[in-house]
Amino acid sequence: MRNSLTVADKPRSGTSLRIDGARLLDRLDRLAEIGGGEDGGVTRMGFSDADQEARAHVARQAAEAGLTATVDAGGNLLIRRPGDHRGSHRPPILVGSHLDTVANGGRLDGAYGVIAALEVLQTLHEAGAETDHEVIAISFANEEGALFPQPFWGSMVFAGRLDALPSEPEDYSGRPLRDALARVGGDLSQLKTATWAPGSLTAYLELHVEQGPVLERLGRSIGVVESITGRIHMSVQINGKAGHAGTTPMEGRQDPLVVAARLIHVVQGLAREEKLCRVATVGRMEVQPNSPNTIPNSVRLDVDLRDSDPARLAAAEQTVRGALAALARLGNVRAVIESTVRSAPVQTDRRIRDAIAASATELGHSQETLPSGAGHDAQIVADLAPVGMIFVPSIDGVSHVPSERTSPEDLVIGAEVLLRTVLKL
Amino acid sequence: MRNSLTVADKPRSGTSLRIDGARLLDRLDRLAEIGGGEDGGVTRMGFSDADQEARAHVARQAAEAGLTATVDAGGNLLIRRPGDHRGSHRPPILVGSHLDTVANGGRLDGAYGVIAALEVLQTLHEAGAETDHEVIAISFANEEGALFPQPFWGSMVFAGRLDALPSEPEDYSGRPLRDALARVGGDLSQLKTATWAPGSLTAYLELHVEQGPVLERLGRSIGVVESITGRIHMSVQINGKAGHAGTTPMEGRQDPLVVAARLIHVVQGLAREEKLCRVATVGRMEVQPNSPNTIPNSVRLDVDLRDSDPARLAAAEQTVRGALAALARLGNVRAVIESTVRSAPVQTDRRIRDAIAASATELGHSQETLPSGAGHDAQIVADLAPVGMIFVPSIDGVSHVPSERTSPEDLVIGAEVLLRTVLKL
Repeated sequence: MRNSLTVADKPRSGTSLRIDGARLLDRLDRLAEIGGGEDGGVTRMGFSDADQEARAHVARQAAEAGLTATVDAGGNLLIRRPGDHRGSHRPPILVGSHLDTVANGGRLDGAYGVIAALEVLQTLHEAGAETDHEVIAISFANEEGALFPQPFWGSMVFAGRLDALPSEPEDYSGRPLRDALARVGGDLSQLKTATWAPGSLTAYLELHVEQGPVLERLGRSIGVVESITGRIHMSVQINGKAGHAGTTPMEGRQDPLVVAARLIHVVQGLAREEKLCRVATVGRMEVQPNSPNTIPNSVRLDVDLRDSDPARLAAAEQTVRGALAALARLGNVRAVIESTVRSAPVQTDRRIRDAIAASATELGHSQETLPSGAGHDAQIVADLAPVGMIFVPSIDGVSHVPSERTSPEDLVIGAEVLLRTVLKL
Repeated sequence: MRNSLTVADKPRSGTSLRIDGARLLDRLDRLAEIGGGEDGGVTRMGFSDADQEARAHVARQAAEAGLTATVDAGGNLLIRRPGDHRGSHRPPILVGSHLDTVANGGRLDGAYGVIAALEVLQTLHEAGAETDHEVIAISFANEEGALFPQPFWGSMVFAGRLDALPSEPEDYSGRPLRDALARVGGDLSQLKTATWAPGSLTAYLELHVEQGPVLERLGRSIGVVESITGRIHMSVQINGKAGHAGTTPMEGRQDPLVVAARLIHVVQGLAREEKLCRVATVGRMEVQPNSPNTIPNSVRLDVDLRDSDPARLAAAEQTVRGALAALARLGNVRAVIESTVRSAPVQTDRRIRDAIAASATELGHSQETLPSGAGHDAQIVADLAPVGMIFVPSIDGVSHVPSERTSPEDLVIGAEVLLRTVLKL
């Protein structure tokens, strides 16, 4: 796609447009204060008070830049340039990520992609650039699913996957998403109005920290993502029978924690010993009543399986289901898989990959093509449009933790490559 | 010990004194409402608001009965008859249990023994009975350790085991016991004033629900406790390294939950397969940050081991310690046992057992001598006085759960036997 940007004082090319790196970094710092903890971590779980504050903060920055911020029925925050600056009516290019985090997560996961998208839009707007396609920045709601266990909520609504969503979602404490959504300006009864049809977007671009060690180890500044991992997420509920820890004989026990412990062993063995899938994790577990003197009566835990091969993922899921059933029988407890969310592996668009690679090269930055081990909204948006992802290096390869960091230079480079890729498309 | 009770209208014997069964049952019902849940469970964790309310409620009932309620520096609630009704100055007989519960526990565990002790004292008082020994009712503070992880707090202070207590105890959230204690009328700086010397009590008697299935299966109304199980309680902290569940390779992981899961397997195997101790339980476990997408960075769990043989208990503890160290090495995590509370097995006093058995027989109730699988304040008070325990049957043998029940008939019988045993001593 030809770059048709025209700017009054730089008529030959939009490629000389540059991101305001200092403003980008300053905005990231200020955003990290919302939900920020003393250890540098950020807790801004989707639809929490902190998440609401961050959304309002970014919307305010957009308005101050002369842009228009709106919220769709699914709670996604969309930022657009005012109508008279738009060029043709070809399908828009969407650029973004998410503002929500996991509990005590990092300052960059999601937030970086949203702030960079805002910077791209503001840079175009301030330069008075006319583009063939409208460029829209987006922050998808509740990507992480840390509070309301519906990860990718916003992008699933956006992509029209309404059938795959629960009709009355609740958070881990049973509070309705309906109310939380209304507070941010969404409307659970009107989700249909937030959906976009296949073909209605030219492209979706997401800039993100790698969250893994590859770019750092190879010394590359830019990652061109070729695929996004597939993922299966299962919420498991195991119910046994509570009893006094001192007076209940071992023989008659129905201890759900013993069963859960064996399941955790099976889950990690799947990936580590049996190599049935790439990674397998139990990250969340709740024990009831959770008293030192009492045999638990219930355990809830979350199983997360990831692989880029759908067949391997399906086999791993079947192994977990079979093991859970067998362990429950042995332990004389009732176990059910309350929900299963499957995200198929997704390939990014070749033309977009080429545009990212060319942009990085033109700007003089090293690059590497690599898969994404984490899930991203891009994999959902791939239902309706070609998608591309740009990675920047993660220091020590860590993410979802307070020590999540990327060097300031790499943060600015990533946003520059994002801008140039948008212009190229 | 000769029964020297004298009552004006019943000069020959105090044994015709009877508990007001209806009042006992009514008081138990009313007490169960404090901290009571919809499922019949009671949550009155030591020093919580509900616990404070229950303590004030019982103190008020004592005052209304003409008795005197005071709180010692350790937070124990003592109920006495006014001075002029006391007989000789021989060492008192102490009767009681505790008012605190586990999270969502039962309505009788502890509460029954306190209310029955109040009834005994009130019955003696209303009859104007003179006894050789002063009879004191007590509710020991924080027997369960459900909120502040210092089980037997009150009885340990009472028995002078101050060296075994942390100097600045905190609850699971880090709130100081000092403040909680002050709110109920205790004083952490003055614990010494709450201690009793060996020989300063004639006996301690505790009436309790069995919490196990023995009496019900045998069809007996009264259990004469011959010993109280030994117990080792370990608080284990396992620290690993958080990371993104999708991007962190299995090989480099330091997942404390995987190590905890294997430890749970070892703990249950200790008792179930290896028969190293009678019962072994993990009832409490906290995972941080507890997010479905994040490898945990820390797990805290409680290991509970019980046996009536100190040598077997010690061997079981060593096995847990060895396994934890080995598993931590394998899993590349740091594991520490933050605290270990050991309660040695305790034999009850033969003379008191005989008095309980004789009382039950004289009142026409069936009985059985049995060990206690649960820990009780009596095992701590045994440091300074002969102790005895009376059990009544638990329906289905369950305890520490909302369905904890004993038939009303058995509840009244237990209190009658307690009163008669007090008089016999």
